[in-house]
Amino acid sequence: MAKKSFPLSRVYGLLEPGPVVMLTTSRKGTPNIMTLSWHTMMEFEPPLIGCVISGRNHSFDTLLATKECALNIPAAELAEKVAAIGNCSGRKVDKFAAFHLTPVAATRIEAPLIAECYANLECRVADTRLVNKYNFFILEVLKAWIDPAVKNPRTLHHRGKGVFAVDSKLIKLPSRMK
Amino acid sequence: MAKKSFPLSRVYGLLEPGPVVMLTTSRKGTPNIMTLSWHTMMEFEPPLIGCVISGRNHSFDTLLATKECALNIPAAELAEKVAAIGNCSGRKVDKFAAFHLTPVAATRIEAPLIAECYANLECRVADTRLVNKYNFFILEVLKAWIDPAVKNPRTLHHRGKGVFAVDSKLIKLPSRMK
Repeated sequence: MAKKSFPLSRVYGLLEPGPVVMLTTSRKGTPNIMTLSWHTMMEFEPPLIGCVISGRNHSFDTLLATKECALNIPAAELAEKVAAIGNCSGRKVDKFAAFHLTPVAATRIEAPLIAECYANLECRVADTRLVNKYNFFILEVLKAWIDPAVKNPRTLHHRGKGVFAVDSKLIKLPSRMK
Repeated sequence: MAKKSFPLSRVYGLLEPGPVVMLTTSRKGTPNIMTLSWHTMMEFEPPLIGCVISGRNHSFDTLLATKECALNIPAAELAEKVAAIGNCSGRKVDKFAAFHLTPVAATRIEAPLIAECYANLECRVADTRLVNKYNFFILEVLKAWIDPAVKNPRTLHHRGKGVFAVDSKLIKLPSRMK
């Protein structure tokens, strides 16, 4: 993988803007992918991420059983695959094969990373206390990867019913935020 | 207000794309505003929203005491105010006055809405069980408003250190999602 390690302290800048992500899991050697937009940063370092995964998703059971997953961030070039992956189930489809995506071995978890995504976060489940009531998992990022060749990724932001807004320009404003 | 009521079932489409929002509160007649990016949808209807509010924020104490707030969604035209509001504290600044924003009375809560934002969500705190450990509040949207004149708002997505990505074009892909 042509990606380089990315500091955990800077992971928030990848997820705070709210991009659609693809969550990968693996169980008994069978990987799966789902599309996900309901996530939020919860802590800077170590990075904590909260995300909602419906119990109807195949990934829900796998995540609960294996306690690990990767969050893979696609740019707009992958939009059609991202939407299509969100519209089928891993119970019926081998999504890596069906959508011609390349699984790459992670370093800290069994679940594969998606090579075509410009950033990958290896995560473990850190807290399940809101899973029963809200399907809400809290993940800790163990290791982060980024493609140094992608300078300004145009991320995807789902507005519902298959409509996505795409980032275009960046603006820089005075800030005391880190 | 020239805004119209917005169906609660469609609120997820406003927040799922991850825009920066401005949270308004009011305590003993004194309103305040903070800027917030760490939020996620948690349920469609009634809409539930999870958000992280640091205990360092003046709004944290108010939200815990009053159990209500509004989430106001700005478009890119308000970018400079959004960033500046995130860089000062309501303990020292009357932000509505300092930033020339117009408070509008809400219908279900005491906290005011921001007239200049194209959408406003009146919320009550629905669950505080993760506040102690993660500063994580779960809000229920009681009433939603939208400016019908704004057809394609260019929302702001914070990438850290004052850099914001701005939505530009929309793409429509096949989807079974509602």
